[in-house]
This record gives sequence, structure tokens and C-alpha cells, in this order.
Amino acid sequence: MGNQVYDVLNPKCPTQQVLDRVAGKWTMLVILALGDERVHYAQLRRRVEGVTKKMLTQTLRALERDGLIERHVHRTVPPQTEYELTPLGQSLAGAVTVIRTWAYDNVDRIAEARTAYDGADSSASGIELPAV
Amino acid sequence: MGNQVYDVLNPKCPTQQVLDRVAGKWTMLVILALGDERVHYAQLRRRVEGVTKKMLTQTLRALERDGLIERHVHRTVPPQTEYELTPLGQSLAGAVTVIRTWAYDNVDRIAEARTAYDGADSSASGIELPAV
Repeated sequence: MGNQVYDVLNPKCPTQQVLDRVAGKWTMLVILALGDERVHYAQLRRRVEGVTKKMLTQTLRALERDGLIERHVHRTVPPQTEYELTPLGQSLAGAVTVIRTWAYDNVDRIAEARTAYDGADSSASGIELPAV
Repeated sequence: MGNQVYDVLNPKCPTQQVLDRVAGKWTMLVILALGDERVHYAQLRRRVEGVTKKMLTQTLRALERDGLIERHVHRTVPPQTEYELTPLGQSLAGAVTVIRTWAYDNVDRIAEARTAYDGADSSASGIELPAV
């Protein structure tokens, strides 16, 4: 399919589903939390603060199905499971890191824009007291 | 805040909220649909196929609040509204384009991984008929 023309704006194009899958918050956070390491499930749960067990398990399963992570099960008692990015997952990690860097670089600008917007909004709606 | 250490994995860090906001499917699609142009609301709705009026309006409002797009209202009859990316929005568009390019480059690999995963899964669960 090397010459096929993709269009992410078309819901029938398979690339939109890919974007939707990788663009989720938890997907991105799990990919960033894995980094270059092989990480135990419990460790991963601590790294991605605030993630529920259900959401983490769901995210990991979807990432494995998409070929982005590999699962290693150690038949110890109790059994231990480790996860790591595949080469495909590592290439996605590169793209996700670009988004993270953008967030780090621009979080202050976004906060300023919100303050300005909310201020303009409340004065326009007449909530602010008029100057005496 | 130039020297502040951010951590997107920490839900208390404001950068996680930024990631969550920009990482949504509709946010990314609207940003890509705007590109370098000033686009009418109706035009935008056609470009982002499948988006509901409610979701598009919500996405545009959030993007405006975050300082990522600018809204131009023309006091015609009926009034017309155009949207365009701000310089901040254009810098985000660059990062989103990296994700889109990754999706275009890897959609086939992901499809293959899914087929392999689902095949292994159904044979493991005994759904496939045994070879005669």
C-alpha cells in the first residue's frame, strides 16, 4: 500500500483509527512511562500516577494488540509480568515525546491564554462589578 | 518558570492537563483541518467528517480558550464565523503532524500486528477448527 493516499480526516481511512488509538491520554502516558526499560506491572502502576488498574490493563492490552509493546510473563510464584516497547512502540514514543516537549514548553502560555479568556468572558457576561 | 521541573506522569503537574487537552482525537483533527488557512465553521464541519455540531463547537471553544485558535466574527446577515490557528496553535500543529505522519507510516504494521494477535488469540481459545 506504499502509494495509497491516506486521509486522517476521513473516518473511513484506517489512519484515523490509528490516530484515535495512539492519541489517548493513557496510551501516551504509558508509552512515556515505559521509555527504554522493561517495567513490571506494579512499577508501571506507580509511574503512571492516578491510573486505575482497569484502565492500565485495558491500555496495555490494546498496545500489545497493536504491536507497540511486548509482554514478558515470568512463571514465578506469584507470576510476574513485565512490559517493554517494541521497535514500533519506540518509534511512536519518539512522536509522543514531541507532544510532551510541546506541553512542557507551552504550559505557561496556555495558562495565560485561559486566564485572559476567562477574564474577558466574566466581564462580558456582567459578573464583574463595574469600576466606581 | 523556566527552571521548573515538569512531570507529565504526575496528575498534579499542569502539563498533564495540557497533554490531555491536546491529545484528543477531535482536537488533533480540527488542528490538522485548519492548517494554514482561515476556515468557515461550515467548511470545517465538512473537512472533519463525522464530527457532530456539538463536538465541533466544544472543541473550537476549548481551543480558543487555550489560545490555540482565533475566532473572527463577520457581522454579515447571517453572521459568519471563521477560525484560524494562532502562532501557538501553529506550533502545536507541527507536533500533531508528527503523530499523523507516524500513523500514515505505520498503519499497515499495526493492522498486521492486530491480525497476528487476534489469530493467536482465537486459536488459543480453541475457536479455530483443528487441521485435518
